[in-house]
Amino acid sequence: MDVLRLPGARMEPDELAVEEPLEIRVGGSPVAVTMRTPGHDEELAIGFLRSEGIPAVAAGPSLDLAGNTIEVEVEGEVDLGRLERHFYTSSSCGVCGKGALEAVAVEAPRVDSDLRVQASLLAALPERLRAAQPAFDATGGLHATGLFDESGTLACLREDVGRHNAMDKVIGWAYLAGLLPLRRHLLCVSGRLSFELVQKAAVAGCPILVAVGAPSTLAVDLGRDRGVTLCGFVRDGRLNVYSGPERIV
Amino acid sequence: MDVLRLPGARMEPDELAVEEPLEIRVGGSPVAVTMRTPGHDEELAIGFLRSEGIPAVAAGPSLDLAGNTIEVEVEGEVDLGRLERHFYTSSSCGVCGKGALEAVAVEAPRVDSDLRVQASLLAALPERLRAAQPAFDATGGLHATGLFDESGTLACLREDVGRHNAMDKVIGWAYLAGLLPLRRHLLCVSGRLSFELVQKAAVAGCPILVAVGAPSTLAVDLGRDRGVTLCGFVRDGRLNVYSGPERIV
Repeated sequence: MDVLRLPGARMEPDELAVEEPLEIRVGGSPVAVTMRTPGHDEELAIGFLRSEGIPAVAAGPSLDLAGNTIEVEVEGEVDLGRLERHFYTSSSCGVCGKGALEAVAVEAPRVDSDLRVQASLLAALPERLRAAQPAFDATGGLHATGLFDESGTLACLREDVGRHNAMDKVIGWAYLAGLLPLRRHLLCVSGRLSFELVQKAAVAGCPILVAVGAPSTLAVDLGRDRGVTLCGFVRDGRLNVYSGPERIV
Repeated sequence: MDVLRLPGARMEPDELAVEEPLEIRVGGSPVAVTMRTPGHDEELAIGFLRSEGIPAVAAGPSLDLAGNTIEVEVEGEVDLGRLERHFYTSSSCGVCGKGALEAVAVEAPRVDSDLRVQASLLAALPERLRAAQPAFDATGGLHATGLFDESGTLACLREDVGRHNAMDKVIGWAYLAGLLPLRRHLLCVSGRLSFELVQKAAVAGCPILVAVGAPSTLAVDLGRDRGVTLCGFVRDGRLNVYSGPERIV
């Protein structure tokens, strides 16, 4: 796509991060639309649904020529109503004083893992993620999530205009690779840590989540509640540990 | 909140960006839940609904002690079904080859404004936004949207863990201040330009949208389709113009 650069008024080609809607269907019914960067859509659909507690097992190929509609196969009978959780909560929420965590969290057990890692390994992950991020240099517009094994070796990297999509793709990849729950792995994200990202990591059973940026208050609350070790501001050999410090030696 | 800093293993207090769910209700029914930074919730609820094409006119105060539920008053009869647009699209989408823009865009007229501004004014906006962003320095975790008049004077700044929320708050503020449509104003965001942010600017009638970061492909497509001037990578006196260059002198 051509872009006008100022000052100088030169017209030059510019590579942009691609954003397109993906409609996710279950049993022929649309259940969600996400604005995502095309590619690895099967992983994205499976990872998204599993993060919401829906046992997705397979997906795709796309149902339309544009590649923006995908059908997902799920195990057994599922309650698709729970997908409405983020958008339409029960009227009992809030007024009765129910806490924010209970109102928005997917039900999942506490993360069960005796994984222990060196602080220096955690501090090295963002640089490894960045070095393996092919599209970012070109577009400057993509979030990344990386899955690392306990030795710090990158197992899977995914990029997307949406940070939640990048993590869904990685979790979908891990499911298809037979790696869930992720008891011996680490996740690393290129940006900030929201509540939603911690929830996805917790539901996937991942004991350690590392971020280049800062966590929010609710992200830390959830990390402590679900037993996920959260590290933020991981830069220049330094890091902050917000929850689960016992996993760091 | 206390945080463990490595190396050194010091426990120190750390200020984090606050994230809490806000349930938005219309006529007593929950219509959306957004994860946001508390504050300016009335503006957020009004701006969010107006961006979705719902004529919200007033909101609040909160219905619960935690401050996480808000009721919005709308004008006339409204079709709340359109709020499902992002989440549950019609089954005709995608398969029939309908374009991505038509599938996800809110219906709104092209932006009608003969505003013309100097490139140097646009290049100065991100720095003015950053200088006025009080919470970012403390937490490192907040997105900002600023509304500027045509002389480049800041009219309203809002911060949030969600970039769409920051813009919704500004648009809600502008509505309550009687400024919509924003034919003589400029919006500036601290991050990247997604489709959703361009849509919100277009629905608010704003002719120029400036970003510190990069736009996505669909953001540019929508900017061109709706007549919004989009500037990205605005740094160090330089900027890229992706659409509507005729407004820049």
